Amino acid sequence: MHSIKNTRLLDVLNNKPVDRTPIWIMRQAGRYLPEYLETRQRAGDFMTLASTPDLACEVTLQPIRRFSLDAAILFSDILTVPDAMGLGLYFAAGEGPRFKNPTRTPEDIKQLATPDPETELRYVMDAVRLIRRELNDSVPLIGFAGSPWTVATYMVEGSGSKEYVHIKKLMYGDENALHLLLSKIASTTIAYLRAQADAGAQTLMVFDTWGGILTPRAYQAFSLHYMQKIVTALRESHASIPITLFTKNGGMWLPDIARTGCNAVGVDWTVDLRDARALTQDRVALQGNLDPGVLYGSRVKIKEEVHRVLESYGAGERHIFNLGHGIHQYIDPDNVEFMIETVHELSPAFHAD
Amino acid sequence: MHSIKNTRLLDVLNNKPVDRTPIWIMRQAGRYLPEYLETRQRAGDFMTLASTPDLACEVTLQPIRRFSLDAAILFSDILTVPDAMGLGLYFAAGEGPRFKNPTRTPEDIKQLATPDPETELRYVMDAVRLIRRELNDSVPLIGFAGSPWTVATYMVEGSGSKEYVHIKKLMYGDENALHLLLSKIASTTIAYLRAQADAGAQTLMVFDTWGGILTPRAYQAFSLHYMQKIVTALRESHASIPITLFTKNGGMWLPDIARTGCNAVGVDWTVDLRDARALTQDRVALQGNLDPGVLYGSRVKIKEEVHRVLESYGAGERHIFNLGHGIHQYIDPDNVEFMIETVHELSPAFHAD
Repeated sequence: MHSIKNTRLLDVLNNKPVDRTPIWIMRQAGRYLPEYLETRQRAGDFMTLASTPDLACEVTLQPIRRFSLDAAILFSDILTVPDAMGLGLYFAAGEGPRFKNPTRTPEDIKQLATPDPETELRYVMDAVRLIRRELNDSVPLIGFAGSPWTVATYMVEGSGSKEYVHIKKLMYGDENALHLLLSKIASTTIAYLRAQADAGAQTLMVFDTWGGILTPRAYQAFSLHYMQKIVTALRESHASIPITLFTKNGGMWLPDIARTGCNAVGVDWTVDLRDARALTQDRVALQGNLDPGVLYGSRVKIKEEVHRVLESYGAGERHIFNLGHGIHQYIDPDNVEFMIETVHELSPAFHAD
Repeated sequence: MHSIKNTRLLDVLNNKPVDRTPIWIMRQAGRYLPEYLETRQRAGDFMTLASTPDLACEVTLQPIRRFSLDAAILFSDILTVPDAMGLGLYFAAGEGPRFKNPTRTPEDIKQLATPDPETELRYVMDAVRLIRRELNDSVPLIGFAGSPWTVATYMVEGSGSKEYVHIKKLMYGDENALHLLLSKIASTTIAYLRAQADAGAQTLMVFDTWGGILTPRAYQAFSLHYMQKIVTALRESHASIPITLFTKNGGMWLPDIARTGCNAVGVDWTVDLRDARALTQDRVALQGNLDPGVLYGSRVKIKEEVHRVLESYGAGERHIFNLGHGIHQYIDPDNVEFMIETVHELSPAFHAD
């Protein structure tokens, strides 16, 4: 890690000064890039792409080659974990992820496998090792997993959802079964993230996409509690690896997230970073939070909104520029490049000389 | 209005003491009721049901007959307004609402009709008049509309959406065109709500389902600004009609919503009512906020969670019990009855003798 050339992201995570605000983009290896679409077509389907280390490495590197980004993020999916637990992940054309065997009953939950990451998820670790070699210490590599609550939601619903009928039935109908499920996912996720760190990931992020559908009390009990377990376990085994937690629509809970001992908190665009910073009192770095929709706008608009995000964080060393959620597939890559250049141009003013 | 028998809802809206917390349920006339499904089947499709006053009246009254509720809400849909503006609303089987002619370009927006509610939406006013006659002043009737932002989102997307590509393109690409669209919808909505009040609706609610997908600044400019216009206009024409505003996922913006001059603010279940009350400083009544998913639980769980909501609001006269969003279609009506009885049983303790 000491030999890495671009240390901006790790510096901000470790509370060290930087010359300008680091930037990476959630879902930066994605469908808005023609080279990604080309590789994905070659792979045939998403799971082949994600589970073939050569191909996963290739798409991870594509945005790094094209843009001047400060980090690479492993190309994978948060649902590789439940797939390895035996649910049979597949992607229905135009419909998003689905599971052949959703987890509904207490019996389903009891029978879940607890996979060994270096066996059942070896393809991920092989991809991490390959990517690190190919990156050649140019920028750090971010490893990641879904939060136990978010993964559980997918496992129980069997697909994306609008009303979360099945997981809410479980939550209000058999809380103990849900806790057992979350514990199993948390254990698997801890082993999975440790394996990613051992394979070479230099910082880790946990995506809690669905924490925001919970009541404040349920968020604490069913989502944050298990993210806390992950942070605590990683601190024991990998004391110095920086960890970022991100709960979409979790603006009201930023103070609690910041108290887990994580290094950074992701913030979506519904919160002003000024408020997020006040709520977390500089205890953590903040990552975000441009509305991905801004990238549909003109250059004048993009520049205006990038400046607004930088200004909302203000002067200080603990901001990681990013979108507030994943980039959309219909965005013009030239606009992405312009956004990145704008961050390079405007952000030094917010850092001490 | 002076002759109405159950005045609890209007009393809370008008800041008068009540013996217990009033309760009604968002989407209370809906698919969880077998009698609703029967009437809907008879109608053939949703639009026929919504646009035939006899049938709309029938389904509006069904939950009032079955349960001991403190208000009826007009059976209709927020998309009747854009339908009357010329977009051609239809419901694709299992897919939710769609428009034949979505509004995408500045030309589409310029050409939008501004309907006269007593002509193009006369079926709604006829339903309101009929429902009032049938209710015979037993409980008050709530009229409603979608917020201009929410209606615009549907009009531009042409259907429900996950990433809101088209409306964000418009927002960041042609802000003036979006403001023109929102102004047209706001004018139509003001006329529509005035007509509902004139036809007999005794209180009005504005549903802002998609305000929560905006940045704080965009929420002010594109959603709250137009809801403010509606409140101001209604205050001019109908000084004493109580108005409720509800932005889903708008927890961070409760203080701003409360300052519009509305009488009540709807709160979804992601916010603790204790915090919502502190944020709005008793300036308004608060409506909510049981997670609809609780109704999948056992009676013990339902009672526990109902109590939690009542307790989170605490002692005071300005709470309207409701779910935090619409009731799900798979809920057992017996559980709904139990929830209502529980509010009747537990809430008097939170009101002064």
